[in-house]
Amino acid sequence: MQLITEAYDLLKTALGFDHQQLHEVFSAWNETLELNSYLMEITADIFQYIDSKNNALLEIILDAAEQKETGNWTAIGAIDLGVPVPTIMTAVNARIVSAYKEERTKASQVFDRVSGRDKGEGFVDKVRNALYCAIARAYAEEMALLKAGQVRQCHWNLLEVQRIWKGGCIRAEFLQPMQQPCPAQLVSNLLLASHFKEAILSRLAVWREAIAVAIQLDILIPAMSALLSYLNSYRRDRLPQNLSQAQRDYFGLHTYHRIDRLATFHTEWTQVDAELLQTVTAD
Amino acid sequence: MQLITEAYDLLKTALGFDHQQLHEVFSAWNETLELNSYLMEITADIFQYIDSKNNALLEIILDAAEQKETGNWTAIGAIDLGVPVPTIMTAVNARIVSAYKEERTKASQVFDRVSGRDKGEGFVDKVRNALYCAIARAYAEEMALLKAGQVRQCHWNLLEVQRIWKGGCIRAEFLQPMQQPCPAQLVSNLLLASHFKEAILSRLAVWREAIAVAIQLDILIPAMSALLSYLNSYRRDRLPQNLSQAQRDYFGLHTYHRIDRLATFHTEWTQVDAELLQTVTAD
Repeated sequence: MQLITEAYDLLKTALGFDHQQLHEVFSAWNETLELNSYLMEITADIFQYIDSKNNALLEIILDAAEQKETGNWTAIGAIDLGVPVPTIMTAVNARIVSAYKEERTKASQVFDRVSGRDKGEGFVDKVRNALYCAIARAYAEEMALLKAGQVRQCHWNLLEVQRIWKGGCIRAEFLQPMQQPCPAQLVSNLLLASHFKEAILSRLAVWREAIAVAIQLDILIPAMSALLSYLNSYRRDRLPQNLSQAQRDYFGLHTYHRIDRLATFHTEWTQVDAELLQTVTAD
Repeated sequence: MQLITEAYDLLKTALGFDHQQLHEVFSAWNETLELNSYLMEITADIFQYIDSKNNALLEIILDAAEQKETGNWTAIGAIDLGVPVPTIMTAVNARIVSAYKEERTKASQVFDRVSGRDKGEGFVDKVRNALYCAIARAYAEEMALLKAGQVRQCHWNLLEVQRIWKGGCIRAEFLQPMQQPCPAQLVSNLLLASHFKEAILSRLAVWREAIAVAIQLDILIPAMSALLSYLNSYRRDRLPQNLSQAQRDYFGLHTYHRIDRLATFHTEWTQVDAELLQTVTAD
């Protein structure tokens, strides 16, 4: 839902699309194998709903999202299990901040926004591709979370979950290529399964472009950009978190590990002569 | 810590800075009123630490962040209190994903990364300004969280917290302009206090540019970009969450509010004649 909301905002703000145009875009996307889903279908319907005063009803709805607690529970469960869930967390945050309507109205008077339109060709397709990549990553996140949950005696069958998500009120058509049960270790990591790997690789450049345009135009797309950040982390052999580990060792003696030797180390960082001042503990 | 880690990554990856250059940049930043802090100081020290084989020790440290549970507790508490904490959540996620070292190594072989350097002038200054804005927003987030926590019988004095954060092992010099107690309602919302408001307004454009460069170069800066997204949400009078509300009403009869009338509404979205099919409940 959050990702669709961001796509709506991108098309409306960067291209100035009206509700009829939005209806047409979402209807067309819903006809594609990649984006056909229940949520896409109802979104297309929502854009088309005109009230008796000839206004798009959507524009009169208050933009303060309410929520049942399911998003919150999921985020808390993921933190507890140590599974990264950038989609869920960003969506939870986006709903929370939307509810601060009064404070937002004040801030909007203080902080001007850039206004402008995208002049680039093919922006609708960039948004479509970014949306597809982000949705694929969101499914991967949920699968990984369900898999991790199995340690808590939740014996769900992930292939069965995948089957269920292809129908009913989720009906994510784009999971169809996964009809052939994929190797068990990949169920929890859809992005490494060959179909999605290729699909995402071929779209990374436009995903990046869509987000860069959004940032330049001050359009918020928290989940789409969080997911790109996440993918950028995930595909890095080497992350900068060695610095966090060094900081933790410096200020709190929390120790660190090295890439070349299996042991636990502590360094007196303000001294220059390294080896003498390192404490080494065998793991 | 996460924001500093991202600044390190930006300078190292986009500009190819070595440890001596990183040491010099962070030392210089630590001399400024805006960025002087304990963490900045120890980071400068860490870059300078050379081991007996003449290597920067930092590069040999394993990039899998460990954590005590404090980040997790804070994120869970914030969800519980309904306070948006994009910095904390992004930092928690970044640590979690860094710990998936083996999976990351596999993914790095599958997903190529763009490599390249920033050729733009003044990139170091862009990073410095982006870092300052993001840190200011992070402090604002923590103040808002502490304020919200007061409903749980935690009677901390926020002005006293601000005073404490200016010294000791936090020593955030940049809070000095807040020496004059600011109006109580602003303590929890530093960004609307005039000093920070001006500081951020004048830096928004370079913050945006730094992030756009990072995205084009595939450098992950999850917290810096999440905070810009957050600020972009926060300063919008109108967010696209009206669509989430419409979706929730469509599929789950969760009802919605309008901007023009105080009542609770439900619509039969697949019908076109609006008023007849709306259910209205007085609030």
